[in-house]
Amino acid sequence: MYHGFTELSKRLMRQGLEDDGLAWDFTSIGSGLGSRKISAKIIAKGPGIWAADPIVAAAELLSHEFGSPLKFQVGVKDGAQLKKGQTVLSLSGEAATLLAFERPLLNLASYLGGIAHQTRELVDQTEKAFRKNIGRAPAGITPPRVTSTRKTLPGYRDLAVYAVHCGGGHPHRVSLSGGVLIKENHIAAAGGIAKAIRGCRLVSPHGLKIEVEVRNLAELDQAIESHADAVLLDNFTPDLVKSAVKKIEKSGQKIIVEVSGGISLSNIGDYALPGVHVISSGSLTHSVKAIDLSLLVDD
Amino acid sequence: MYHGFTELSKRLMRQGLEDDGLAWDFTSIGSGLGSRKISAKIIAKGPGIWAADPIVAAAELLSHEFGSPLKFQVGVKDGAQLKKGQTVLSLSGEAATLLAFERPLLNLASYLGGIAHQTRELVDQTEKAFRKNIGRAPAGITPPRVTSTRKTLPGYRDLAVYAVHCGGGHPHRVSLSGGVLIKENHIAAAGGIAKAIRGCRLVSPHGLKIEVEVRNLAELDQAIESHADAVLLDNFTPDLVKSAVKKIEKSGQKIIVEVSGGISLSNIGDYALPGVHVISSGSLTHSVKAIDLSLLVDD
Amino acid sequence: MYHGFTELSKRLMRQGLEDDGLAWDFTSIGSGLGSRKISAKIIAKGPGIWAADPIVAAAELLSHEFGSPLKFQVGVKDGAQLKKGQTVLSLSGEAATLLAFERPLLNLASYLGGIAHQTRELVDQTEKAFRKNIGRAPAGITPPRVTSTRKTLPGYRDLAVYAVHCGGGHPHRVSLSGGVLIKENHIAAAGGIAKAIRGCRLVSPHGLKIEVEVRNLAELDQAIESHADAVLLDNFTPDLVKSAVKKIEKSGQKIIVEVSGGISLSNIGDYALPGVHVISSGSLTHSVKAIDLSLLVDD
Amino acid sequence: MYHGFTELSKRLMRQGLEDDGLAWDFTSIGSGLGSRKISAKIIAKGPGIWAADPIVAAAELLSHEFGSPLKFQVGVKDGAQLKKGQTVLSLSGEAATLLAFERPLLNLASYLGGIAHQTRELVDQTEKAFRKNIGRAPAGITPPRVTSTRKTLPGYRDLAVYAVHCGGGHPHRVSLSGGVLIKENHIAAAGGIAKAIRGCRLVSPHGLKIEVEVRNLAELDQAIESHADAVLLDNFTPDLVKSAVKKIEKSGQKIIVEVSGGISLSNIGDYALPGVHVISSGSLTHSVKAIDLSLLVDD
Amino acid sequence: MYHGFTELSKRLMRQGLEDDGLAWDFTSIGSGLGSRKISAKIIAKGPGIWAADPIVAAAELLSHEFGSPLKFQVGVKDGAQLKKGQTVLSLSGEAATLLAFERPLLNLASYLGGIAHQTRELVDQTEKAFRKNIGRAPAGITPPRVTSTRKTLPGYRDLAVYAVHCGGGHPHRVSLSGGVLIKENHIAAAGGIAKAIRGCRLVSPHGLKIEVEVRNLAELDQAIESHADAVLLDNFTPDLVKSAVKKIEKSGQKIIVEVSGGISLSNIGDYALPGVHVISSGSLTHSVKAIDLSLLVDD
Amino acid sequence: MYHGFTELSKRLMRQGLEDDGLAWDFTSIGSGLGSRKISAKIIAKGPGIWAADPIVAAAELLSHEFGSPLKFQVGVKDGAQLKKGQTVLSLSGEAATLLAFERPLLNLASYLGGIAHQTRELVDQTEKAFRKNIGRAPAGITPPRVTSTRKTLPGYRDLAVYAVHCGGGHPHRVSLSGGVLIKENHIAAAGGIAKAIRGCRLVSPHGLKIEVEVRNLAELDQAIESHADAVLLDNFTPDLVKSAVKKIEKSGQKIIVEVSGGISLSNIGDYALPGVHVISSGSLTHSVKAIDLSLLVDD
Repeated sequence: MYHGFTELSKRLMRQGLEDDGLAWDFTSIGSGLGSRKISAKIIAKGPGIWAADPIVAAAELLSHEFGSPLKFQVGVKDGAQLKKGQTVLSLSGEAATLLAFERPLLNLASYLGGIAHQTRELVDQTEKAFRKNIGRAPAGITPPRVTSTRKTLPGYRDLAVYAVHCGGGHPHRVSLSGGVLIKENHIAAAGGIAKAIRGCRLVSPHGLKIEVEVRNLAELDQAIESHADAVLLDNFTPDLVKSAVKKIEKSGQKIIVEVSGGISLSNIGDYALPGVHVISSGSLTHSVKAIDLSLLVDD
Repeated sequence: MYHGFTELSKRLMRQGLEDDGLAWDFTSIGSGLGSRKISAKIIAKGPGIWAADPIVAAAELLSHEFGSPLKFQVGVKDGAQLKKGQTVLSLSGEAATLLAFERPLLNLASYLGGIAHQTRELVDQTEKAFRKNIGRAPAGITPPRVTSTRKTLPGYRDLAVYAVHCGGGHPHRVSLSGGVLIKENHIAAAGGIAKAIRGCRLVSPHGLKIEVEVRNLAELDQAIESHADAVLLDNFTPDLVKSAVKKIEKSGQKIIVEVSGGISLSNIGDYALPGVHVISSGSLTHSVKAIDLSLLVDD
Repeated sequence: MYHGFTELSKRLMRQGLEDDGLAWDFTSIGSGLGSRKISAKIIAKGPGIWAADPIVAAAELLSHEFGSPLKFQVGVKDGAQLKKGQTVLSLSGEAATLLAFERPLLNLASYLGGIAHQTRELVDQTEKAFRKNIGRAPAGITPPRVTSTRKTLPGYRDLAVYAVHCGGGHPHRVSLSGGVLIKENHIAAAGGIAKAIRGCRLVSPHGLKIEVEVRNLAELDQAIESHADAVLLDNFTPDLVKSAVKKIEKSGQKIIVEVSGGISLSNIGDYALPGVHVISSGSLTHSVKAIDLSLLVDD
Repeated sequence: MYHGFTELSKRLMRQGLEDDGLAWDFTSIGSGLGSRKISAKIIAKGPGIWAADPIVAAAELLSHEFGSPLKFQVGVKDGAQLKKGQTVLSLSGEAATLLAFERPLLNLASYLGGIAHQTRELVDQTEKAFRKNIGRAPAGITPPRVTSTRKTLPGYRDLAVYAVHCGGGHPHRVSLSGGVLIKENHIAAAGGIAKAIRGCRLVSPHGLKIEVEVRNLAELDQAIESHADAVLLDNFTPDLVKSAVKKIEKSGQKIIVEVSGGISLSNIGDYALPGVHVISSGSLTHSVKAIDLSLLVDD
Repeated sequence: MYHGFTELSKRLMRQGLEDDGLAWDFTSIGSGLGSRKISAKIIAKGPGIWAADPIVAAAELLSHEFGSPLKFQVGVKDGAQLKKGQTVLSLSGEAATLLAFERPLLNLASYLGGIAHQTRELVDQTEKAFRKNIGRAPAGITPPRVTSTRKTLPGYRDLAVYAVHCGGGHPHRVSLSGGVLIKENHIAAAGGIAKAIRGCRLVSPHGLKIEVEVRNLAELDQAIESHADAVLLDNFTPDLVKSAVKKIEKSGQKIIVEVSGGISLSNIGDYALPGVHVISSGSLTHSVKAIDLSLLVDD
Repeated sequence: MYHGFTELSKRLMRQGLEDDGLAWDFTSIGSGLGSRKISAKIIAKGPGIWAADPIVAAAELLSHEFGSPLKFQVGVKDGAQLKKGQTVLSLSGEAATLLAFERPLLNLASYLGGIAHQTRELVDQTEKAFRKNIGRAPAGITPPRVTSTRKTLPGYRDLAVYAVHCGGGHPHRVSLSGGVLIKENHIAAAGGIAKAIRGCRLVSPHGLKIEVEVRNLAELDQAIESHADAVLLDNFTPDLVKSAVKKIEKSGQKIIVEVSGGISLSNIGDYALPGVHVISSGSLTHSVKAIDLSLLVDD
């Protein structure tokens, strides 16, 4: 397992326990849950993608730091497709601790699973449509990647993107320092696309490509002339995208083409075109339908 | 405005800025956004409920603490219905600051608006169905309240519930210390419903009612016999709910009746029955469709 | 052991070590305490109640996180009466660590023990007086519970209430979200007791009872008329309390009766009356006489 | 005003508001306290010493950071004697904010006032007894100072010592890095008083004096021989203290003499002897009787 | 001024005040510095580059949050050359506050100025040597940029890089998420340069270039074959660098060339060659000679 | 090992990992470093002093808290002289974790080693010169100690001083509460040296000596008359220092003599004079040349 998300996951699990006011769970105290050892299972009650390994690792580590260790056994790997009724993981430990951890663990796992599930659907749909769209295209051409945006809830950027990754998608950039994307307001401030590109190239680390968001073919022309490394075609129709791709091919430059704006499961296929390298969708992370997970205590 | 949510809102806004890696926004630096003063508007691009006053207050306070004050003018009140195209708020300040605050502000406002919007729909549907269901019932009877659950993302409990509130809904309990809800595992640990109720009443503050989750009419009988203050009918059909309500009326006790389990917009009306006081729904907060808000810089 | 207080206890232990400026204990460094293994005992040098299990658990966990594990063996349970000279716990580990942990551990344990001890005295006195006061009352009637208030030092709410609990007392509410208590200023803002009760019932979770503080019998009448769930009789003489109880009995409503204001060990017995359910006392937590605990290093 | 305690005071005020779960004060919301402007007074309901200027400054600053400024006007200075009925300060602002700040403000102010009050009593008693004890002593001799110890609640060290200061007392050392005090366990570890003193002098900053705790006159002899800068006479009777002072005078060395162990208001006068420079008392900070302060909202 | 560094600067200023144990500055209290207003100047006592605008902004904001506002007037801009004796800024406020802020402010400003100064020297030397080295080269060719590395003290990454920027240098990447740099251990793990490049291109955001560190010309060949976007020539002699540049030119690919390893002021000129785009140096940030700044209180 | 620095070291290691944006190390993910076990060595590539035991302990503890334990074996003790090519420590664990910890660990260890190394050089030079300067002086006279100042980077005070300690030096005072040093501005505020000393003695803990900074022999006279415990001779020439020492000897008082101002390796020997007890140097901590450490992964 990659451990880069454990810290953030621990912080969120801990926050979840604090949201619940861990100290005074009167129901738990009053019913004497106490320190009896119990075991339980987390079951998928519908389809989804598992994307919560860091959460489970965090819960286990945290339970040690609370002085009441829980043991977890995960039955699936991140990225795996969940089937209705499938046991995802088993856990055991003191009853009061186990049931206190249940809610934040499920809240996080079902949220991340929801992001991964949505991503998987867009990726699958893109690949299917792409194969149809390219017809008898030369081998080695790959379908566009599906990427998320900066539309993530504060505190969840890295884990939301991790879930996108589990669903087969990619990050656009994980923070403002990890990519350059020149938009309308930057262009206005700089005094034109050419100046904005030049300015950004000057201050950015040499390892960052310069991407420009364009709203029409005229702006695309300027981006091409100014040697942008990548262009984001904002709210282009599929036909306009095709024209844009042709223009770029004609320029002889190697420019990455990203399509964005109002992409959903119903229309993503229309953009799965040769010459399009990236399709980004804010809804991957801003509108999430949680997957259905449930904890069952063993008898 | 009530200031109880400002602190949490500031924490989340600050976190959102940190997620973006505020220091090195190379695009902003490279295009020279700098400290020119600009003004902008936030526009609703679709329907929704506004539930972000604390976020806006937090953003304003935070911009002062950053040494680059933004000014906000909010045109609607929390709870207000948004119409497509409506200007929700105006803001002005230094360009680099304003555009840095844009993304976390919109991420939070569209998320909270989504929760409020969903809640409003469930509340409206409940009230409509209730009026239909009661027929010629005596005046003064009120429809059930719609409540959220503990299915909120870590770090968002209070603001998610706040958004529910803006949509006309209610919290069930905001933390474990703010309510008693005896479930299956508590009953098992205590050795039965009667013992669990007695135990919880003993340790809980005298201001908390004792609520028991029951899965069938037999368990309801026990809850009634043990003088529960409230019962949660878990996954009951509407018909079973009616039988439960009758049983309770027959007992002569004043017991609050809550219905829960698989409630959605399509079936909530079936539960909007006389004798039902509370309908709770996890999806209010666990599966949120963000409302569509957009920032436009003034020319 | 219940683990809900471990986190807070760790935070306070860690804070205590920071208060002492752990890094530069020149006396310890200069005298070469170093990493020799020693063992020690904590002895009660006077009477008291033990209420520090979470503190001991926290100290043990923390010592692991510091890379210098201490082992603790606690000889008494939370709530136990301590006798002068009694060994409360044994501990062992590296000398420098053990002696660094000594001061914050004793500071916390003697403070919490002081709260528990004071509570125990009020509870015992209440029960003794109640048995005397009821005369030949029907069986099953229980003496009033003794509760603490919100008069706790910032950062110590949950642990102070925990100590009250160890002494046989109860919390009133652990935070503002965990109970409704309408006071004079709320009544003024709402425009009367009836309106305040109605307003609070409207916004509060359905699991919270509505309690009103009344200053005289006239206000009590209004609270009864408005169907308050509980009343706090503020600064009533014992005779006035008796009149109040009669009024409530006459109303036929089931209203919880709380007595508060200037309660001390010398007068609490006068309020231990039938019909009084709760006696609350701020001094339980605002004026604490630490119990006398001392650490002795074994030869 | 000295601003060195503002930060800590803000942290504690903020913590106090968090303890109360600021967001969901249902009583306040339900009764519509809202943003109406009110003014209020804090009244002393008994004697005491005021020691809360940093708390008031913190509350004012914090209210600005909450977006709901309170204004304070303090009528007394830190260290001032409070009379029953005296108005200590006036404050005004939005009702919900003012009443939310009331509880933590009073909790802190009455705690610090309690420490200052106790200190003042010990200091006064020491000075009175000293004047009596010295008889016709030469002019210019000053009574011993009264100092606190490390027996402070985690998180309160600096403010507790500040209150001691307001009551006319002194800190012993505010952290382990701010003084050297060699005790029994250090002596054992070092292999004797001489070695411990030498070791500590070697590693300590040159600005720190070396103090040794001695339990009898034999140990005092060793401390004198080893040129200790100060000695702490632990649990000495007044007569033994006199013998110790004579020994030191005979040695011709300038050694600071501190007396400690079981000091209270009833016996402190017996130790207010010529040749004693410091009397320290743990109870100043470990057992605090809060002073009685009350907030009254203006009509 | 750009505000992206204000938050971090505030955190460090606050930490500096905490390191000093702000509460108990006995010298300041004892000498009665108090709240008298004073003014002062910060003077450069030697050459350097000013790089502390965010620190000054942070100090001003922080002083407000402490309730004792300081006013600053900065006479130079970030990046400006300082001359010995030059007044850099004036400040005024309460004496105790101003002198408490002095030390952390100077510590930070002289450290950042030291980084900027060193960078400026390397940049100037590179440009001078480049002009000499290119001889009669075509116009429009620019000298290599000088970049820092990840060798920064924990907590200082962003500000250290900011100081590099003020000295005319560039960041390599500000965090691991902001660039791809494949080193020896990555190559070993992936099973060769080609596989490592392919793997990184697959998972990285499309806006990141893939850079490979090579240790000899053979590895460079592999990097070229695998279409690396950039290569880091590790510890190459100037002659080897020239051979590498020729190889790359021959390949017809546009590959960014970075030179690194043992670069100092004495040898950087030898690497300021046509075809070299980046020269990076760890010592810019790991070995810093503070510039000499001094605060003088006005009479 | 002494554990007082572990906490701070953990905080800095954690911060270093955060600076690097641990979550998204695309190079590591893309090249599949993953969880293969590797081992490595840290080698000294030049001379220096080892001063990083707390950092290594912190790294080990932290890796456990990350769920991916690293094992360390340190081959040298803090304070040991490093030789070029020497293996300082061995470590092993999962590749991705080990290489993520590499950079912050080396950044800290080479910085602290640099401070220790510089200190060692000054201490050695002082001792050498002292032996030369004293000629045939009486036995038992020791050379002056070398101390650091408050010129440390925010967040690094305690560890910087620790490194000074490893190099054979001493702290002056670790915070403002741990010593009294009256400077020019304090004297001005108090109204003269005598008043400043009296004021500071009055408020300071009895265990602190009073030190005064003097700029000439006239001020020294005042300090002697006012019975200062220590004097700091600021920017005195060696000859003036000798005159000062004579004056103090003549006074018959035991006054500690500290020399400060512009001390470097080239002139420190001139101040290593009999009668000088302390030589302090800001450059020990404000201008640090990192020692050269390198991690090599085992084949």
